[in-house]
Amino acid sequence: MKFEIMRDHLLAGLNDVMKAVSSKTTVPILTGIKIDVSNEGVSLTGSDQDITIQTFIPAEENGEQIMTITTTGSIVLQARMFNEIVRKLPTNDVEIEVTNGFATYIRSGKSEFHLIGQDAVEYPQLPEISADQQFTIPADLLKSIIRETVFAVATSESRPVLTGVNWHIQEDELICVATDSHRLARRKTKLEQLPTGVSNVVIPGKSLNELNKILEDSTNPVQIVMTNQQVLFKANNMLFFSRLLEGNYPDTSRLIPENYQTNVILDGKSLLQAIDRASLLAREDRNNVVRFETLEENMIEVSSNSPEIGKVQEQIQVESLEGETLKISFSAKYMMEALKAIDGQDVIIQFTGAMRPFILRSVHDDAILQLILPVRTY
Amino acid sequence: MKFEIMRDHLLAGLNDVMKAVSSKTTVPILTGIKIDVSNEGVSLTGSDQDITIQTFIPAEENGEQIMTITTTGSIVLQARMFNEIVRKLPTNDVEIEVTNGFATYIRSGKSEFHLIGQDAVEYPQLPEISADQQFTIPADLLKSIIRETVFAVATSESRPVLTGVNWHIQEDELICVATDSHRLARRKTKLEQLPTGVSNVVIPGKSLNELNKILEDSTNPVQIVMTNQQVLFKANNMLFFSRLLEGNYPDTSRLIPENYQTNVILDGKSLLQAIDRASLLAREDRNNVVRFETLEENMIEVSSNSPEIGKVQEQIQVESLEGETLKISFSAKYMMEALKAIDGQDVIIQFTGAMRPFILRSVHDDAILQLILPVRTY
Repeated sequence: MKFEIMRDHLLAGLNDVMKAVSSKTTVPILTGIKIDVSNEGVSLTGSDQDITIQTFIPAEENGEQIMTITTTGSIVLQARMFNEIVRKLPTNDVEIEVTNGFATYIRSGKSEFHLIGQDAVEYPQLPEISADQQFTIPADLLKSIIRETVFAVATSESRPVLTGVNWHIQEDELICVATDSHRLARRKTKLEQLPTGVSNVVIPGKSLNELNKILEDSTNPVQIVMTNQQVLFKANNMLFFSRLLEGNYPDTSRLIPENYQTNVILDGKSLLQAIDRASLLAREDRNNVVRFETLEENMIEVSSNSPEIGKVQEQIQVESLEGETLKISFSAKYMMEALKAIDGQDVIIQFTGAMRPFILRSVHDDAILQLILPVRTY
Repeated sequence: MKFEIMRDHLLAGLNDVMKAVSSKTTVPILTGIKIDVSNEGVSLTGSDQDITIQTFIPAEENGEQIMTITTTGSIVLQARMFNEIVRKLPTNDVEIEVTNGFATYIRSGKSEFHLIGQDAVEYPQLPEISADQQFTIPADLLKSIIRETVFAVATSESRPVLTGVNWHIQEDELICVATDSHRLARRKTKLEQLPTGVSNVVIPGKSLNELNKILEDSTNPVQIVMTNQQVLFKANNMLFFSRLLEGNYPDTSRLIPENYQTNVILDGKSLLQAIDRASLLAREDRNNVVRFETLEENMIEVSSNSPEIGKVQEQIQVESLEGETLKISFSAKYMMEALKAIDGQDVIIQFTGAMRPFILRSVHDDAILQLILPVRTY
């Protein structure tokens, strides 16, 4: 195996696959990155068993020659070391050569590194996934869907299935739901193309967070294939595999109230900032609970109280306030994350009394629904 | 006490004094910031006993009215909380009022915070330092002097005096020396104005690092007053006090060799990058040692070897190479820090054999001298 490649292309590819490599793995070869050189280009693979990322760097792209391949072959190199070496090489021309089995030379300018590689045959195979059951979502929309739901997954492992986001295809919609049993985030997305086969999976929150980091904010299509054990996201020379969580995801539709007693429409950003301020004092008591109270004349009040330190109160003018008066307490963190997911638009909050879950939506559409359970303090 | 102030001015002042406040203090009132309101303006004081920072925000600056003072007075407010509250207030107008003893109200827009303050009388007094023994250094030069020496202080407390930088006025020069007994950094600076009185102090490295962060990169003068217990830096509405380290600083002048056997002149930046690359492999063995070898024809070689992982070697063309051939090993970290202090200029390195300390200087001037003890591997 011997090839010369432009350093910045190699670095960009490494940057993606490094996201899958964990230093804490129990499988020694997974501390490495697999490099496969064919006549078409170089593919790099990194994995921590849960997530596997493969990027392909083509020999030529848009008429530009990115590499010169002398002989093909495969090797596994220690990931962190290889990445740091490439990052610090003195020139943009990098020559990589494997001789005598696994002895690897990395040359650039007058600098020569010699690394002891590992046999690529030892590296785990990628899962085989047939592409006939795929559907497509633009990358930027996929990133939004992830951001609007993944924060609500459970961080505790007491019910492992809740640490993932449930992706469920029903009729012509993809419904994504996350809940930690204190709050819930739901995002519905119309699909233009419907897959057959597996229609209900639970994707680990950690995998979705990594996918969100790696995806470009573009309208380029991402192909998605769901199987019983794995989900595969395919974008622009990149394959992202994640294992799925086992177990049945709970039916959350019955949690969402159908009748409401108090409806408030207000500017989400103003409320977010007021809650942020109120939470400064709430945080000190560890429970992070703020109070929300309807007043006369389209005003509400947000307040918080810490006996040791002090208190804060703030009134906010709302666009509309209908129904019964209300005093309710909730987690500032949950409310802030829900408001960030709806992203500063005009928000409607619908309450069913101080003891019942309440929901937040944009007034403009129904795609995103956030539900929060109140805390009993009144 | 009651005044209204523009939030951005209050924040800038808080930002400075917060650098002196530690959450780990054993003196409860030092978790607070002291606010003193006079008719001339507001002064803020923060301290962790080692460092005390006081900033003064004048009521009026360059014809701009920064605050309106209704009544004067003093209060101590919990530092982290007060800082976060001011940071998150909704408008640029902040009203602060103390009523009924220590009950403090912070109002901005429709937001009102109520904090329980502490009696300012409980806050430690600033040390009294007479200003008749001061000398002056421009802020940007003072920052350079700190950066070029402070990295070489000892991190271990086994000889506490070595955790500071020795500032010594001799004839018309300020000589700053730091050493951890494996390497040494020395910076000489001509003074235009000479103080009488105390001429030899040891300033804790931590204090100098904080001072460097807080000083602006400008040519504005900083006045420096050295006493037996404290050093005071005065700049533009800011007072920075540091305690001094006790004990005699060792005489380091005899460590510096007087005769050299090998002299190399080269580009400091190229060497820095080559050492950085070589240290990638050296680091794995924990000792971080790289080798340096003179070759024929104005070439040197930097190399490193880690039996488990591999090796690296790199040749560098130098500007001049005189004297005996040399193979020497040293800490990559020390060499990189020394080269960064000399800052990429043409560097002369002077060796007295593989077992003796060697020195680095700029070829252009003698102000900065860096000394490194080699590691015995050959």
